[in-house]
Amino acid sequence: MDKNERQILLTPGPLTTSTTTREAMLRDWGSRDGEFIAMTARVRERLAALAGAANSHVCIPLQGSGTFAIEATLGTLVPAAASGKLLVLINGAYGRRMARICDILARAYVTFETPEDVPPTAAEIADVLAADGAITHVAAVHCETTSGILNPIEDIAAVVADAGRALIVDAMSSFGALPLDAGTIPLTALAASANKCLEGAPGMAFAIIEKEALAAAAGNAPSLSLDLHDQWRVMEDTGQWRFPPPVQVIAALDQALAEHQAEGGIEARAARYGRNRRVLVDGLRDIGFETFLPDALQAPIIVTVRMPGDPEFSFDRFYDLLHGQGIVIYPGSVTIEPTFRIGCIGRIDEDDMRRALAAIRDALDEMGIAKDGLAPAS
Amino acid sequence: MDKNERQILLTPGPLTTSTTTREAMLRDWGSRDGEFIAMTARVRERLAALAGAANSHVCIPLQGSGTFAIEATLGTLVPAAASGKLLVLINGAYGRRMARICDILARAYVTFETPEDVPPTAAEIADVLAADGAITHVAAVHCETTSGILNPIEDIAAVVADAGRALIVDAMSSFGALPLDAGTIPLTALAASANKCLEGAPGMAFAIIEKEALAAAAGNAPSLSLDLHDQWRVMEDTGQWRFPPPVQVIAALDQALAEHQAEGGIEARAARYGRNRRVLVDGLRDIGFETFLPDALQAPIIVTVRMPGDPEFSFDRFYDLLHGQGIVIYPGSVTIEPTFRIGCIGRIDEDDMRRALAAIRDALDEMGIAKDGLAPAS
Repeated sequence: MDKNERQILLTPGPLTTSTTTREAMLRDWGSRDGEFIAMTARVRERLAALAGAANSHVCIPLQGSGTFAIEATLGTLVPAAASGKLLVLINGAYGRRMARICDILARAYVTFETPEDVPPTAAEIADVLAADGAITHVAAVHCETTSGILNPIEDIAAVVADAGRALIVDAMSSFGALPLDAGTIPLTALAASANKCLEGAPGMAFAIIEKEALAAAAGNAPSLSLDLHDQWRVMEDTGQWRFPPPVQVIAALDQALAEHQAEGGIEARAARYGRNRRVLVDGLRDIGFETFLPDALQAPIIVTVRMPGDPEFSFDRFYDLLHGQGIVIYPGSVTIEPTFRIGCIGRIDEDDMRRALAAIRDALDEMGIAKDGLAPAS
Repeated sequence: MDKNERQILLTPGPLTTSTTTREAMLRDWGSRDGEFIAMTARVRERLAALAGAANSHVCIPLQGSGTFAIEATLGTLVPAAASGKLLVLINGAYGRRMARICDILARAYVTFETPEDVPPTAAEIADVLAADGAITHVAAVHCETTSGILNPIEDIAAVVADAGRALIVDAMSSFGALPLDAGTIPLTALAASANKCLEGAPGMAFAIIEKEALAAAAGNAPSLSLDLHDQWRVMEDTGQWRFPPPVQVIAALDQALAEHQAEGGIEARAARYGRNRRVLVDGLRDIGFETFLPDALQAPIIVTVRMPGDPEFSFDRFYDLLHGQGIVIYPGSVTIEPTFRIGCIGRIDEDDMRRALAAIRDALDEMGIAKDGLAPAS
């Protein structure tokens, strides 16, 4: 790669951030100092406002990755077995991970699983809830990064609310780019992270939780570090994080949130990512690749591509050739079928997607893969 | 504060880092890309080498603050009640926190507590261990940041090893500045973080654990995110973090570790912090303050000062006046007696300490506090 040419990360996060967001990390902050307390408050308010939840819900930031926030949300909100039971909707690795967390935390749960390219329907969920009155909470993934599928979160929320259960949404790879308005969609909690569609740096995640549900959750969490009730209580009392926060990462998110607003908020970000997806999907199909999902289910977040059937195609070599041109895609697959993934998110635009497509064409030429070799093995 | 003048953090972390360390955060990294995998491996090796443990132990980095690594280490290594029992040595808030973690994780434990200015002796610990054969592990804090006291870790390690128990050390505020060589001091695990004496950015902590003890710990952890055995296994298999790491924070630590080595390693860092402490303690006493600890127990990490007895002395105003001169000290106290704390660590030197002392003198003048008003209320 030409050292002067920007590396483009087409990954589901950490991803490409703006130079100004990274420059916000160039100073030190005392984590218990007034300036930093004010920054934490501003970030929390902006995140809650993005969820349309500034009055009803509260944002609790947490050190760590998105999975830390998911585990913390489940552990804090779902009471121990006998008092609580979770229904986990699964159509990919992130749904499966929530079930694994329940196993480890000894939370009672059941799953409802659909194939990785099939969203659950409201009717199916209603049936499961009607048949099992012990279920207190339902967990759903908004955009399942495994495949990039968009689950029908409004329909899910409506049916869960009708049945009088609490909804917890993994909004990790959608928050900030796909609308999820707690003012109109009944949800008890969502969890997301700084380093996906908000285009911040990794190191901080957060949950946005209905105040009453959180207030009722004292003592539930089977962890000190991941206890969101305790994190919230201390933050409300003192404005401070309980334990040293990643100050530079929060400064980066503060800047990234200002840039999100300046771009035009969720709508503008969704439009840019949608253009990225359009250029990418059209370009990939034009080259000869098959996408894993039909367009109607494809969120503008990450595109999953079926692995070419040509035995000459080596994904590792393909990855390295793209890397040599400054294009970093996601290595490896988490779907059950062999696939690879290319992200549409981050501080990238249609020109970046065209540059990526040109690099893909060059890599295929270099590998001697013809168009008809790109069809998946049947 | 003059905007051109550098703010000095005299806090126990996050603290003052070097400009070059912060500049290492100016790029993005794909977290599953080969370049980043190589950086993770380099950081892990350097950390294990600093502990003198490159052959016997392994370094497992973890997203989050130091408390996350402490909780993860206890949860991963100490088996659930009935199979394991921890003796927690307490002379401050961080020892107490380990006991609280055991309560939450449902680990069996007993405590041995000494006053905040008194270290435990080897004989006392030997007695406790001899009297309770069920104790499998002992947890000790190397430098208790509550007061800045240095606990006699070599003596503790020897007596724990003699009794055939496993030692877990909270080395949070000492690692990188005070020697703790697992090659000569028998210890099963230590936990520390990037943003104390290593002078990295906050957002990442780590444990250094004896390989055999870690290999035997599969399935112990009552958490997915904080399972160090699982984190280690995946990292050994793939070189990758299980969940997205704070890539910029790790790049900063990589740079900070190079600067640690260039400075002359642990010995040179201990010497610089020792000079900082000398200038600070002498200066504070000259002004009229009393330090909480006698010199023999005072680690060169953080100095605890008795709160002045003069009713005109307002700590909040003192803090703000120092802040106005670009000096950020630790707000608030965690000792049982009223005190405040000033850090000696971070990328600061004797001149910075003299600047802080001058700002302290100015603040006292501004508040109209005479030298004899600085004696603590009796």
